[in-house]
Amino acid sequence: MADQVAPENPTPAAAPTVRPKQRVSHRGRSAGGRASSNQQEGKVEEFEPFMLMPRGPPPLTEYLDIFDVDVLKQPNEVNKQAHHTHLYSSNFLIVRRAQEFQIKITFNRPYKPAEDKFAVEFVIGPVPQYSKGTYIPVFPTAKRQSVWSGRVIESSENVVTMGITPSAECIVGKYMTYIGVETPYGIRRTRRDPNTDIYILFNPWSPADPVFLDDEEEREECVMNELGIIYHGAYDDVSERAWNYGQFEFGVLDACLFVMDKADMPLSNRGDVVKVTRVASAMLNSRDDDGVLVGNWSGDYMYGVPPTSWTGSVEILLDHANSSGTPVCYAQCWVYAAVFNTFLRCLGIPSRVVTNFFSAHDNDGNLKMDIILDENGKLDRNRTKDSIWNYHCWNECYMARPDLPSGFGGWQVVDATPQETSDGMFRCGPASVAAIKHGQICYPFDAPFVFAEVNSDVVFYRRRKDGILEVVKVNQTHVGRMVLTKAVLHSGRRDITNQYKFPEGSPEERRVLEKAEEFGCQREKSSPALSDVDVEIHSLDVNVGENFDVTLQFTNRSDQRRTADVYITGTVVYYTGVPSGEVVFKTPKVKLEPMQSKEEKVLVRSEDYMNKLVEQRNIHFIATGKIKETGQIITAMKVIAMHHPKLTVKVTGSPRVSEEMYVSVEFTNPFKFSLENVDLRVEGPGVLPFKYKQYSVIAPGTSITWTEAFSPRRAGSTKVFAKLDCAALRQVYGETELTVQE
Amino acid sequence: MADQVAPENPTPAAAPTVRPKQRVSHRGRSAGGRASSNQQEGKVEEFEPFMLMPRGPPPLTEYLDIFDVDVLKQPNEVNKQAHHTHLYSSNFLIVRRAQEFQIKITFNRPYKPAEDKFAVEFVIGPVPQYSKGTYIPVFPTAKRQSVWSGRVIESSENVVTMGITPSAECIVGKYMTYIGVETPYGIRRTRRDPNTDIYILFNPWSPADPVFLDDEEEREECVMNELGIIYHGAYDDVSERAWNYGQFEFGVLDACLFVMDKADMPLSNRGDVVKVTRVASAMLNSRDDDGVLVGNWSGDYMYGVPPTSWTGSVEILLDHANSSGTPVCYAQCWVYAAVFNTFLRCLGIPSRVVTNFFSAHDNDGNLKMDIILDENGKLDRNRTKDSIWNYHCWNECYMARPDLPSGFGGWQVVDATPQETSDGMFRCGPASVAAIKHGQICYPFDAPFVFAEVNSDVVFYRRRKDGILEVVKVNQTHVGRMVLTKAVLHSGRRDITNQYKFPEGSPEERRVLEKAEEFGCQREKSSPALSDVDVEIHSLDVNVGENFDVTLQFTNRSDQRRTADVYITGTVVYYTGVPSGEVVFKTPKVKLEPMQSKEEKVLVRSEDYMNKLVEQRNIHFIATGKIKETGQIITAMKVIAMHHPKLTVKVTGSPRVSEEMYVSVEFTNPFKFSLENVDLRVEGPGVLPFKYKQYSVIAPGTSITWTEAFSPRRAGSTKVFAKLDCAALRQVYGETELTVQE
Repeated sequence: MADQVAPENPTPAAAPTVRPKQRVSHRGRSAGGRASSNQQEGKVEEFEPFMLMPRGPPPLTEYLDIFDVDVLKQPNEVNKQAHHTHLYSSNFLIVRRAQEFQIKITFNRPYKPAEDKFAVEFVIGPVPQYSKGTYIPVFPTAKRQSVWSGRVIESSENVVTMGITPSAECIVGKYMTYIGVETPYGIRRTRRDPNTDIYILFNPWSPADPVFLDDEEEREECVMNELGIIYHGAYDDVSERAWNYGQFEFGVLDACLFVMDKADMPLSNRGDVVKVTRVASAMLNSRDDDGVLVGNWSGDYMYGVPPTSWTGSVEILLDHANSSGTPVCYAQCWVYAAVFNTFLRCLGIPSRVVTNFFSAHDNDGNLKMDIILDENGKLDRNRTKDSIWNYHCWNECYMARPDLPSGFGGWQVVDATPQETSDGMFRCGPASVAAIKHGQICYPFDAPFVFAEVNSDVVFYRRRKDGILEVVKVNQTHVGRMVLTKAVLHSGRRDITNQYKFPEGSPEERRVLEKAEEFGCQREKSSPALSDVDVEIHSLDVNVGENFDVTLQFTNRSDQRRTADVYITGTVVYYTGVPSGEVVFKTPKVKLEPMQSKEEKVLVRSEDYMNKLVEQRNIHFIATGKIKETGQIITAMKVIAMHHPKLTVKVTGSPRVSEEMYVSVEFTNPFKFSLENVDLRVEGPGVLPFKYKQYSVIAPGTSITWTEAFSPRRAGSTKVFAKLDCAALRQVYGETELTVQE
Repeated sequence: MADQVAPENPTPAAAPTVRPKQRVSHRGRSAGGRASSNQQEGKVEEFEPFMLMPRGPPPLTEYLDIFDVDVLKQPNEVNKQAHHTHLYSSNFLIVRRAQEFQIKITFNRPYKPAEDKFAVEFVIGPVPQYSKGTYIPVFPTAKRQSVWSGRVIESSENVVTMGITPSAECIVGKYMTYIGVETPYGIRRTRRDPNTDIYILFNPWSPADPVFLDDEEEREECVMNELGIIYHGAYDDVSERAWNYGQFEFGVLDACLFVMDKADMPLSNRGDVVKVTRVASAMLNSRDDDGVLVGNWSGDYMYGVPPTSWTGSVEILLDHANSSGTPVCYAQCWVYAAVFNTFLRCLGIPSRVVTNFFSAHDNDGNLKMDIILDENGKLDRNRTKDSIWNYHCWNECYMARPDLPSGFGGWQVVDATPQETSDGMFRCGPASVAAIKHGQICYPFDAPFVFAEVNSDVVFYRRRKDGILEVVKVNQTHVGRMVLTKAVLHSGRRDITNQYKFPEGSPEERRVLEKAEEFGCQREKSSPALSDVDVEIHSLDVNVGENFDVTLQFTNRSDQRRTADVYITGTVVYYTGVPSGEVVFKTPKVKLEPMQSKEEKVLVRSEDYMNKLVEQRNIHFIATGKIKETGQIITAMKVIAMHHPKLTVKVTGSPRVSEEMYVSVEFTNPFKFSLENVDLRVEGPGVLPFKYKQYSVIAPGTSITWTEAFSPRRAGSTKVFAKLDCAALRQVYGETELTVQE
């Protein structure tokens, strides 16, 4: 009831049905837009008057004028050599922080330090501000200095050679260069000249920079090396993939800066390596934020490139940048890690790709992987949900951690593969490797998740009739069995497991796990009595398409007879440990005399598994069983990664810089079925940009040979490698080494 | 060149132009979908055979059968009283963790503990799993117990009263209840019966629960109180808003659980208060993740409800849930904080809304707010980008922090207002208040950002002609001037500034700032000489629409003459400190005799500001100037929050539970212009669900009276309050108190 005549509308305001756009204007909320783009250019006045000048600037003829600015950007000139940036194929000067570089300025007359006042000005982004580090003037005189120091190195006639040292915290990205001359009326500037633009990168060679890495060989490997080796397969049967990181390829540096622009990352944060790596770990996957790569583990790659087909990062980063940020299809963990590695090395952050074998992927962040058996000890597939990745790849990058107490700098885990972290976001790290080794998982970022990936226990439960789960066995050594990365400056492996954990069973290891529990990691406490009968699974190397035997090795350690009812299942699994099809199921009953050892063979025939194979052709065998006399449970697990045909890669011609030579890739289809829509890729770091070819069909027994001409871009030893990929046969791989002469 | 006839397609695979859908199937990546929905129900077999039964289950007549299950859910029954959940208007049983509740089971015959085997089973989500805490059987016998304990309290004839105690870490949400009887053939279950569904919440009353708060009055305020007071305005002229949190209103609990479902939060994480609060801080804003509320500070609220118009959380949460998760328009910080508070209290997490006056909103996370003056000491608006919010509201919630070293439990800051955190994500916290007070900002989550909000310095720079900024003044006391929250169990204020910081200038404060710097906070080091002339700004309370004086108070502390060239600007600002229109600019020249004090008045006329007012009607005065004799800079700042007309709210009738009474809201338009499209809202916690009315126009000088009938739902003292809101006049407010008798 309202005693007023004004028309009324008593319906409550409902939530709008149109979904509001996610980016509401910043008006009223922040002063001016955010400076979060390196591509946008702020306007810089050519004349900046000190007072009102109705008639515009007066003639300034008697003041210093600039004829030419040379930033000495040729690869063979002083700057790129001294700053380790000569390998970038780029038309611009590229230097590193906290290290002097030189520019030559030609004036209209000799420079007179006493009266002439000029400054070299560096500008980045749309709203240049001195206090935000996006506008930096540099002065030639010792008494006037800004956050970047400057000095006159040489002055002859009209030419001044000036030395400029960017601060160790300055923003990493692309700057515009101006020269401003101060006159009584105002500041007169040079015109915008793209030729004088300068990229400034992180500097692992400078002790002042948080990414300083005090080991020349490590820097050569983790910053300068374009050729990578990524490990996969099974921990006891490791395979390798070569990868072309291509951080120096034309356009890659701009593509990396574009990733930060796409992330809308404030420029003022881009000098902080912790923030840069964290933002990148989120941006490299397309979850949440339309990042670089779309993850796909389904086996169906119709709408993109199969993850197993890529040979390098260049194609991916350029696709993303050239499509103004459309996510690229498809990636799995090693693709994320490899592209992330390119991003990091390209910006000057020391980094490497590591592979963790048997990586726990536990989406509630506790330290248990649950395997559930029924009352008879048979695996209960429906109730077993956790999966252990046969391997998982992530990155380590090297940096100080000023945001943490001392002792946690050095290598840091970052992971761009979208996983369900307990934090619910698809990003991970940087997490200090030292903190993980010592169980100090209370420090950012995401340390508990990484800790679980290498330290989880595998817990076998027997499900009682009344629904309760009884722990029957705890395997504390299965997960995080081995962490590998490429060796420094040669192609061997490097086992860095001991940087993540103390030796299994050592007192230090126990203390670390207790420490981690203090910070909320839940572990399985009960330690059920060990069975007096053991079982192990063995097998020889297996080539895809062959029949093979799996051997169950039983050992009775008791002085009584034992009878084992055993269930052995062999299942084709994705590398994520997720089961696809079951290929064999046997239930042998084994009688064991006191102290007896005995073998039981299980035959697996090719027709049982060939039609079920997925992706990387792993067959996961689990043997479980119950000892009749004692009721104890015995278990064993083994992943068999099948070997597959190889590609033959040959290079012919004399390997000299910019002399033409040829690579030929040969393959013979060894199967009784024909291969369809076959992708073939070949590339070689520094010598051969990636090439792609498709064969619609390769009939059984037939061979193909693909030859391409190329001419090496630079000297040194490198590899040329190729991948063949199709739905029926993934990641067939071949490589050859070559050394290019000047 | 390929020596094979197969057709070829040498074009490289380009990135697909169709944007791939963000949710690729989990196939191959994880075993089965994630259990991240409380709404989906897992299938539970009515009969679960132990062996194959071709002919289906045999007759089970001789075994125990269940006639009835009573979960004693009436508000006056034992459970809700003991668990402090009697106020929830809900048709279901609602209890808390780590505390026993009772259910009555009626069997077909007396229960024989010796032979009868039954279990009460609780199931949550689509894939019930004992090891993930989503399937929990509870047994009546001491020797068979699961993670939840059970006992028989009383057994008379066919009726058994059972006591059930959920574990202190169990998942918070809605469970289904079954009773399973074990027979030799299998487990026989009761049918699904929604009447026996049970909500389990956090338990601040139980020492075992991480949210335990050992103070009954605090619990009454921070968990049970639906009536809130939220502070705003200026620190020296604080205003209040009453708010109806309405955490017990019908449907609100389900709406809160829906928020976690919308966030796709794994059920197994929902027992962890740290993870729940962190996910919620991201989900309550619509950035990144289509959360509950769309932020809008622009002054244009055409497509939704103006932030200043809301009177409570119920309308918002129900809108969101009923529109299957469409973000609700619009919110500003206090709306985010208020709705977040409802979420937290509803789930049983002790929480309160706090207001920080002069909150630094610094988007590069250092500790400086930059104000830039030109050579003459005049404010340079174009170069001054940082803004200081006149106030900012966030939440504190109370919990242990098992993920951190000891000493950092207790109150934690969480903030749902989307700000540019250095982490780039629109979420914040939980960050330990104790850690912030002691500068221990190396612990998660987002502590450095909160630390900056209360500890930043205001730095005045003079911009030299050559572009360099000279620090001329550092104000270390302006930011984080005062932190307020509602007092416990009465409507007074509580100043909790000392929980965030040590006293300004104390040695502890200095140590804390040094500690924070160790963790990467950058502060302004230079401390320029203090001027020997001071200036302050004073003014009396101002009612909107009036002319008023602003007084500049000058004091010359030197024994010489001083001349000050002063610039004073008054600018209408949003509460975010962002300038809108300039209303006055004067440049008095003041001559001061030695040791003299002098006043200078500046008149501000209503016609200068009335047409420029925005939102909350703050005028921000900044006086800056230069002392001719010394060249020193003097500065002063003051925000004047204008007072505005009030609403008159009256209730008539006798305030008794469920007896009808009336509320009338009166308003007179005091302005010379008419108000259009006026929103009017009224509500009262526990007595009056929100009502809405709109007037298309209120002419100058005319009055409106709006009367509504209502009948109180429960006894106790509460408030009824109303808000009037339109484009020309925001958040006109009125309230009245009443005490309802039984």
